[in-house]
Amino acid sequence: MLRLIIGNRAYSSWSLRGWLACKISALDFETVVLPMDTPEWDSGAAKGELPSGKVPVLWDGDIAVWDSLAIADWLADKVRNARVSRGHFWPQDMAARALARSMSAEMHSGFQALRSGCAMNLKYNFPDFVPSPEVLADVARIDALWSRARDVFGTHADVAHEGPFLFGGFGAADAMYAPVVTRIRTYGLPVSDVSAAYCEAVAAHPWMVEWTEAAKAETYPFARYLVPGGVPA
Amino acid sequence: MLRLIIGNRAYSSWSLRGWLACKISALDFETVVLPMDTPEWDSGAAKGELPSGKVPVLWDGDIAVWDSLAIADWLADKVRNARVSRGHFWPQDMAARALARSMSAEMHSGFQALRSGCAMNLKYNFPDFVPSPEVLADVARIDALWSRARDVFGTHADVAHEGPFLFGGFGAADAMYAPVVTRIRTYGLPVSDVSAAYCEAVAAHPWMVEWTEAAKAETYPFARYLVPGGVPA
Ligand SMILES: N[C@@H](CCC(=O)N[C@@H](CS)C(=O)NCC(=O)O)C(=O)O
Ligand SMILES: N[C@@H](CCC(=O)N[C@@H](CS)C(=O)NCC(=O)O)C(=O)O
Repeated sequence: MLRLIIGNRAYSSWSLRGWLACKISALDFETVVLPMDTPEWDSGAAKGELPSGKVPVLWDGDIAVWDSLAIADWLADKVRNARVSRGHFWPQDMAARALARSMSAEMHSGFQALRSGCAMNLKYNFPDFVPSPEVLADVARIDALWSRARDVFGTHADVAHEGPFLFGGFGAADAMYAPVVTRIRTYGLPVSDVSAAYCEAVAAHPWMVEWTEAAKAETYPFARYLVPGGVPA
Repeated sequence: MLRLIIGNRAYSSWSLRGWLACKISALDFETVVLPMDTPEWDSGAAKGELPSGKVPVLWDGDIAVWDSLAIADWLADKVRNARVSRGHFWPQDMAARALARSMSAEMHSGFQALRSGCAMNLKYNFPDFVPSPEVLADVARIDALWSRARDVFGTHADVAHEGPFLFGGFGAADAMYAPVVTRIRTYGLPVSDVSAAYCEAVAAHPWMVEWTEAAKAETYPFARYLVPGGVPA
């Protein structure tokens, strides 16, 4: 069985992306939590479970796939090779696919201001948070990407997969942006109506509900995530 | 015809990666240079040619694919859809593919010390460069990844594509690491014998020779790349 190693559900945004990729694959997998900043993390790393020193890592027997985007693409290949008709990672349409891949890669390598200024936090909300101009610029760019995906492709990219997500059904691009959706709620960041509706749809997805409930139930004390002004989520 | 927009060949490492991805596809494409820090760049950006404000960007009619890794994967899909037996992006073997994808994603999102401390520069070498411990740690990690790829998969991953590159034939992972190969030469960074042989093979590849010659012929004056101690390459 596949084994996915993740960090704390409340704080590890890349773990959430990797876990959603596993869900999209519809393959069975076991989730192992290695909480960051603990002896468990250090001993997991020492045993070679974290090839790059980071989570998420997907183990398939002795094959390791690390990095959320690599996990999504490797699983997409695995599902296709198995010729099973499940696993909706990327839209079929090549124009939709261009946007889905480009915006996912942009997330993977960018948006530093948002990532460092608004760490994912599923345990607390920050109603008085004042975003910097750089954070607002990242959010505006993401809003434009989401709106373009929804406007141009959202409802007809893959007819078999209509739905309220970026390209219809919940796919790899949605997995990559899911932790941005949570940040918009956590920090009260401004988005357009189209993007707000998209955020609602993501937050209501059963996978996000499952992850968020488990995150709230985590009890690791992490002083470094206790930004002043937080109210329990 | 496909149109690839790149920055200066001498300094734009991501452009080199995207251009190599186009070469791997074996599709015809036209290369358009938008030199950074010039009015041409600003007017290209103003005309909407750079959706993310960065290079490389691949245009296929009115479809834009930006980001080097997205370009590689989108082209891999396009070539597969066209059922042409060319374009060797990722190894077939799923264990090799796991390493190829993971190490490419690690390059795409990481190695900040090497990227900021040793900017790609194909016009000058820096024989007296003294790397920081962080740069050396990045190089050691990359050396381990290259050695693992070569030792475990390099000569037998895809029998049809044997060769001196990471997984036999020149593929997407080689494109992602090509600008690291040039940095190792430019800054005299230390690597193992296995990795040194790999660097030789990459540097001797006709695509790298073509790019490097064109880079040396570029005449844009870029004060910010004129690090003291450089000798013409
Ligand atoms: N590019 C990687 C990023 C992974 C990453 O940065 N993970 C964080 C947790 S969200 C981590 O493991 N941090 C621990 C550390 O760096 O020591 C991916 O997409 O998976
Ligand atoms: N993740 C992107 C990175 C692209 C990137 O940073 N490109 C640089 C040139 S190497 C650029 O366009 N810089 C100009 C700018 O940021 O204004 C990719 O893989 O293509």
